[in-house]
Amino acid sequence: MIEEKYRDQVVNIETSIEAIKRTGIKVLALADRYAKLMIPLQGNINHVGMMYAGTLFTLGEIPGGAIFLTSFDTTKYYPIVKEVSIRFRRPALTDVTVEVSLTPQRVEEMTKEVEAKGKVDYGLDLELKDMSGEVVALVSGTWQIRKVPGA
Amino acid sequence: MIEEKYRDQVVNIETSIEAIKRTGIKVLALADRYAKLMIPLQGNINHVGMMYAGTLFTLGEIPGGAIFLTSFDTTKYYPIVKEVSIRFRRPALTDVTVEVSLTPQRVEEMTKEVEAKGKVDYGLDLELKDMSGEVVALVSGTWQIRKVPGA
Repeated sequence: MIEEKYRDQVVNIETSIEAIKRTGIKVLALADRYAKLMIPLQGNINHVGMMYAGTLFTLGEIPGGAIFLTSFDTTKYYPIVKEVSIRFRRPALTDVTVEVSLTPQRVEEMTKEVEAKGKVDYGLDLELKDMSGEVVALVSGTWQIRKVPGA
Repeated sequence: MIEEKYRDQVVNIETSIEAIKRTGIKVLALADRYAKLMIPLQGNINHVGMMYAGTLFTLGEIPGGAIFLTSFDTTKYYPIVKEVSIRFRRPALTDVTVEVSLTPQRVEEMTKEVEAKGKVDYGLDLELKDMSGEVVALVSGTWQIRKVPGA
């Protein structure tokens, strides 16, 4: 479910970066500290009929930004990605989804740290799943939230 | 420089997978056990004016296939990607290139192993560089070559 206050962020996630828009990504749910995203198989097939590795990576990378948008004050902070690992577990032969969430406690701790130090790292471990719920790829990444200069 | 015998493989790398073609990737050089690839900044810019992380990942992932095409018998073997890590080191504000190569000795050893066991893993450590030669991202991945069934 998409919370009404995040309607603009849905458009932002789906369309603001051309390379992301080209994948056909859809935001399935967006709520406080929660996002569910989907990339369709169609238009993202590789030479052997499964979803291309680079497209799966994109689906694994976007949650770092999507969770930022629903957890932090976007006028005061901005996110960057530091590193991402992806392990391809089995062929992705359908549309693929990913879910990401943060606890209120973790957001509170991170907000304290970014206020104190100007930045804070956050790691996310994510499962990319096909339509039958099978995990097709495992993502582990580190993103960072920084204070907007002067904010 | 592109060796004449690899002309078809250039078209293959640049256009056969739609998600790769969309990045505008160009093969700058293709020779025995060597490839140099480039993705243009144009069409791949993120929300803060640098090359999008997912596009950089794609540039880091394709060498695993490109080096296969110029090192092994493509009628007997095929490659898959197992896992890839990418560390974003500094903003990519220009077109970005990557080079990959294998020694004849390593290709020989890998060929022996895939013949004996039906598959062989190969790791690659790659540097993605901007037009001034600065490393913008470091990629470390594991691919695998497998025997085509019945070949």
